[in-house]
Amino acid sequence: MEKIKPNDNVLFFYNDSKKWLMRVAPKQKFHTHVGIIDHKKVIGKPYGIAIKTNKGKLIFALKPTIYDYVMKSQRSTQIVYPKDLGYIAARIGLQSGFKIVEIGTGSGSFTTFLASIVKPKGHVYTYDVDENFMAIARKNIEKAGMSKFVTMTKLDIKTAKKMPQKDADVVIVDLGDPWVVVPQARKMLKGSGSFVAICPTMNQLEKLAAALRQNDFFDIECSEQIVRTIEARDGKTRHSFRAIGHTTYVAFARKVTTPASLRKILEPVEQPEVETEEIESSEDESLSTVKK
Amino acid sequence: MEKIKPNDNVLFFYNDSKKWLMRVAPKQKFHTHVGIIDHKKVIGKPYGIAIKTNKGKLIFALKPTIYDYVMKSQRSTQIVYPKDLGYIAARIGLQSGFKIVEIGTGSGSFTTFLASIVKPKGHVYTYDVDENFMAIARKNIEKAGMSKFVTMTKLDIKTAKKMPQKDADVVIVDLGDPWVVVPQARKMLKGSGSFVAICPTMNQLEKLAAALRQNDFFDIECSEQIVRTIEARDGKTRHSFRAIGHTTYVAFARKVTTPASLRKILEPVEQPEVETEEIESSEDESLSTVKK
Amino acid sequence: MEKIKPNDNVLFFYNDSKKWLMRVAPKQKFHTHVGIIDHKKVIGKPYGIAIKTNKGKLIFALKPTIYDYVMKSQRSTQIVYPKDLGYIAARIGLQSGFKIVEIGTGSGSFTTFLASIVKPKGHVYTYDVDENFMAIARKNIEKAGMSKFVTMTKLDIKTAKKMPQKDADVVIVDLGDPWVVVPQARKMLKGSGSFVAICPTMNQLEKLAAALRQNDFFDIECSEQIVRTIEARDGKTRHSFRAIGHTTYVAFARKVTTPASLRKILEPVEQPEVETEEIESSEDESLSTVKK
Amino acid sequence: MEKIKPNDNVLFFYNDSKKWLMRVAPKQKFHTHVGIIDHKKVIGKPYGIAIKTNKGKLIFALKPTIYDYVMKSQRSTQIVYPKDLGYIAARIGLQSGFKIVEIGTGSGSFTTFLASIVKPKGHVYTYDVDENFMAIARKNIEKAGMSKFVTMTKLDIKTAKKMPQKDADVVIVDLGDPWVVVPQARKMLKGSGSFVAICPTMNQLEKLAAALRQNDFFDIECSEQIVRTIEARDGKTRHSFRAIGHTTYVAFARKVTTPASLRKILEPVEQPEVETEEIESSEDESLSTVKK
Repeated sequence: MEKIKPNDNVLFFYNDSKKWLMRVAPKQKFHTHVGIIDHKKVIGKPYGIAIKTNKGKLIFALKPTIYDYVMKSQRSTQIVYPKDLGYIAARIGLQSGFKIVEIGTGSGSFTTFLASIVKPKGHVYTYDVDENFMAIARKNIEKAGMSKFVTMTKLDIKTAKKMPQKDADVVIVDLGDPWVVVPQARKMLKGSGSFVAICPTMNQLEKLAAALRQNDFFDIECSEQIVRTIEARDGKTRHSFRAIGHTTYVAFARKVTTPASLRKILEPVEQPEVETEEIESSEDESLSTVKK
Repeated sequence: MEKIKPNDNVLFFYNDSKKWLMRVAPKQKFHTHVGIIDHKKVIGKPYGIAIKTNKGKLIFALKPTIYDYVMKSQRSTQIVYPKDLGYIAARIGLQSGFKIVEIGTGSGSFTTFLASIVKPKGHVYTYDVDENFMAIARKNIEKAGMSKFVTMTKLDIKTAKKMPQKDADVVIVDLGDPWVVVPQARKMLKGSGSFVAICPTMNQLEKLAAALRQNDFFDIECSEQIVRTIEARDGKTRHSFRAIGHTTYVAFARKVTTPASLRKILEPVEQPEVETEEIESSEDESLSTVKK
Repeated sequence: MEKIKPNDNVLFFYNDSKKWLMRVAPKQKFHTHVGIIDHKKVIGKPYGIAIKTNKGKLIFALKPTIYDYVMKSQRSTQIVYPKDLGYIAARIGLQSGFKIVEIGTGSGSFTTFLASIVKPKGHVYTYDVDENFMAIARKNIEKAGMSKFVTMTKLDIKTAKKMPQKDADVVIVDLGDPWVVVPQARKMLKGSGSFVAICPTMNQLEKLAAALRQNDFFDIECSEQIVRTIEARDGKTRHSFRAIGHTTYVAFARKVTTPASLRKILEPVEQPEVETEEIESSEDESLSTVKK
Repeated sequence: MEKIKPNDNVLFFYNDSKKWLMRVAPKQKFHTHVGIIDHKKVIGKPYGIAIKTNKGKLIFALKPTIYDYVMKSQRSTQIVYPKDLGYIAARIGLQSGFKIVEIGTGSGSFTTFLASIVKPKGHVYTYDVDENFMAIARKNIEKAGMSKFVTMTKLDIKTAKKMPQKDADVVIVDLGDPWVVVPQARKMLKGSGSFVAICPTMNQLEKLAAALRQNDFFDIECSEQIVRTIEARDGKTRHSFRAIGHTTYVAFARKVTTPASLRKILEPVEQPEVETEEIESSEDESLSTVKK
C-alpha cells in the first residue's frame, strides 16, 4: 500500500470548496478556517487517511489526480474546466501516443491534462507569446509531473514564417481570435487530424466556423458542455442549487482534402436537422381521412 | 503523409448521421442512399481525401478515432456516450499508465476508450458474466486495436470469494445494481483511488450514494453531462433543434480510510450549498436602515 | 357536471403524440392509426370520459385548454412554444386587464395565449403585413374563442407614420428584424412598460440588445427557456430520452426615461456577474497564512 | 401619462440584484449601498423616470409588475420562481376566469400570480394550516392588490370530511407530501381539469406520479424548467456565468374518467419515446447491402 512521503503532493480535502493541494513537509502546520492541518500526521500513512484538525474537523489526505492539478493550478488566465477538457478528449478520441500542438499555453492546465493522456510516447508542443504566462504554466506543468512530455516554446504562430510542427494528430487553439490561425493549424495537422478551439463567445464560434469551412475542414461541431450535479440523498434526491452558467463553448473539426476536380460538384450537404415542428405533425395524415 | 492501405479501417463520412466505419478492400463497393462508395478510389490516397459516389455526392475518407470506434461499436447493451466518457476521464484524472478494473464489460466500448488512454503501460481488467456480450465486446475492442491493453475475464464479482485485482487506480461499475459491488470495489482500489458508476436512473444514484457513504468513500459527486450543439452560421447562430434528453447519470467517489479513533468525532460535513433564495436577499440589510 | 355537446371543441387524447382537436359532430367518425373515434360516443358524456376505438384502444375526450389550442394551431410560421410563452408571461407579469400590442401576428397562437390572460377587460392589438398569415391567424384565434379580445390590423409598423396605439402595458415583437421597431415600440409603451421580442438566433439578440440600450430601455434580459421532462416511474425515475434542443431565445426590457440632465453622469452600471473562478478561490487567504 | 403618486408601490431599480420595492412617501429617504434614494424626487414624475442618488448613481422608478411582487414577496417558505410559475400557466392553459384551488398557501406569491391572471371573474381559493404563514401570505397578496380575487381559509384538506370546493378548473398543490391529497384534488376538479404539484425532489415526483395513475389521472407530465440568461453584447455574446441549478420540479395531470366497463380492456399506452440509440442506426440497412 502506497504511503505518503515527505515532499509528496497531497490534496487535503475538507469539502468540495475547502481543499488544499500542497507539498508535504514534516514541520509544516497549515492554518485553515476549519483548524490547523499538521503535515506530520499524514507522513507514513496510506493515501486516503483521515486526520483531525485542532478544531476536531476531519480532513482527508488524498493523492492528487490530474483533475486536482487542473482545478488547483495557478491561474494567469481563465482555465479550461474539466467538463470541457473531458468532452474534448472524448470527442477527438484523444489517446496515449498522440502528437499534440497547442497554440496558446495559457496557465498550462490544459497542457497538463493533454500530457497526462498522451504520455509516455506522445508529446505536447505548446506555443505562447507571453513570457509571464509561460513562467506560470511551466510551474503548473512541473508540479503535476508532466514536464517531460511537454515542449514549451515562445513563438507567435500567427506570424511565424514556417510552421514548427507537422503531422500532428490534434491542434488545439486557445486564443481570442482562433480563426486567424486556421491555415497554420491546417499545415501542422496530419490528414483527417482534429482541430479544437476554445471559444468563450458565440461570435468567436461564428467567425471560426466560417474560417474552418473556407479552409477545407469538415465534421465541424460547435457545442457547449454542461455538468449538473445531483444531491443523491435518501428520499430527497434533486439537482444541486449550485450551478455554473457558462465557461466556454468549443469548436471541433477534421482536416480534409477536396481535390479541385471534385470541388465543382460540391453541393451543400444536407444536414440531418430535426425540425421541432415535426413533433406535432403525426396527426396530419389522419386528418385527411376524416369521414362523415 | 499517411496513405490509406488495404485492410485499414476507414470512416466514410457523408454527414453526421450518415457515416460508415469499415475495413477497406480493393474490390468492395458499398451501397448507400447517397450512392455507391467504391473502396479502390481511396486506396493509396491520404486520409481526409474526398471521393465522389456514383450519385455525385462527396464522401470523406477519415482515419477513425476512438470516438468513431465508440459510436460505431456493435451494441449488445446501451453504450456509454462520449459526453459521459469524457467527463468521467476528466473528473477522475484518468491518465496513461493507470490500472483500471471494469465491472460489467457491456459492449466493450467503454473498455476501448479506457484502454486507449491508459496504454501502453496501463491496463484494463474487465469482468462480465454474459458470454454473448463478451464475444461482442471482444470484437469491438479488437477492431479498435486495443486487445493488448485489455484482459477480459468471465467472473461474477458480486459472488467472487477473492477479488481478482488490487491497487487499482480506478474501479468502474456498469451494472444495474452498482451498490452491490461497493465493498468489492473498495478492496480492489488503492488508497484514495476513484470509484465510478454508470447509473441511468435517479434511484440507482440514491441507493449507490448511500452504499458509498456506508463504505468509507468520500468526495461523492453525482452528475449528469449535457452537450448542446450549436449551429454557428453567419448571422444565424443558434443552438441545434436536435438534442438528446438523457443517456445516463454518473456517480464518482474516492476511497478513504477513517480510523476508528476518529470516527467518534465525525460530524456531518457542512456542504457548501448555495441557497437560491440568497440571490434576492441583498437588500435586506438596507431595509433595516430605512429612515424617515 | 359539464357535458360534451355537439359543436364543442374536444381534444381526443391517445398519447402525447397522438391527440386530435376537433369539433364534435354526431355523425362524424374519425379514422386514426389506433382505430376509429366515433363522435357520438362522447356526446352527452362528461369531459374526461374514456371511449374505445374499434381497435379497442382507449381515447380520452378532454376539454381543450389554451395550451391545446396553441399546440394544435394551424401554422403559417413557426409558433412560440408554451415553455417560452409561459416564461414571457411570468417575466413581464402579464395579467388580466393588460393592453398588449403585438407586432407580427404570425399564426395567431401567441395572440390567442395573450388574449386568454388579458380578457375580459384587457385587449390585444396585433399587426401584420401578410394577409395569408392573417387569415390563418384569424381562424386560430376564433377557434379558441378569443376573437372578442383581439383586434387584428394590416399595418406595417416599420413604416407607419403614426403609431396606432399608445400607453400599452406590453409590446411584443415577433419579426425577423425586431431591432427595427424598437423606437416604434417605445412610442406605444406606457412608462416602465415591458418590451418582449422573439429572437431565434444569437445574432438577433445581439443587435436587438444594442438597439434597446440606444433607445432608453433598461432591465434588459436575454434568455432561453428549457423544459426537460422526467419519466417518474417506480424505481426507474430519469429524464426523458426525448428532448427539444432549441425553439427561440427571448429578449425582455422595460421602457425608462433618463432626463438629459442625468445622462451626463450616466456611468456603466456594475453588473452583478459571478465569475466562475471565484468558486475555487476560498482557500487563498488561508494560503497566505502558511507557517512552518 | 401615468404619474407616481404618494403611497404608490414603486420598484427602485439599480441593477438586477439591487432593487427595492416600496411604498412611496414624500418624506422618506432610503439608504442603500449606492446612495440615498429620496422619494420626493419621483413623486409626480412618470413611471420609468431615472433619479440620482447622493452618490451620483442612477436609479429607475418602475411600476411594479406581478413578477416584481413575486420576487420581492416576504418569504415564509421557499417561493415558486417565475420560470416555474410561467411554465405552469402555459402548460395548463391558465386563463382569466378560471376557478383555482390551491392546497398550501405558503408565502402567497403563487396565489398572487394566479389571482392576477384569473381576475376579475375567476377566483383563487387557497387553503393552509399554518396561521403564521397565512398572515405573511395575506400581506403579500394585499400588497400586490389581489385580495379581492383570493379567499384564504384555514383548513387541512388532508383530513377534511367534505371538500370545500367543486368544479375547479385547476387544483394546485404545494405540500411536502402532495400524493396524500390526490383523491381530494380529484373531487374538487371538474372533468378533464388540471392538477399541478410543486415537487422539489425526484422522490416526490415518483410517489405522486404513482398516486395520480392510481386515481384516474391522465396526460401526466413531470418536468423541470430551466432559464439560462444570455449576455448579448457587441461581439461578445455568451451565456451568463451566473446560474441557478435547481428550484423545483413540477408535475401535471388531467382528471379523466375511465368507466369500469372499459377498464378491462385497458392496456399500457405505448409511449412515444425516442431511443437515443436510434440516432446511430441509419446505416444498418445499408450494411446489409454490401457487395463485393
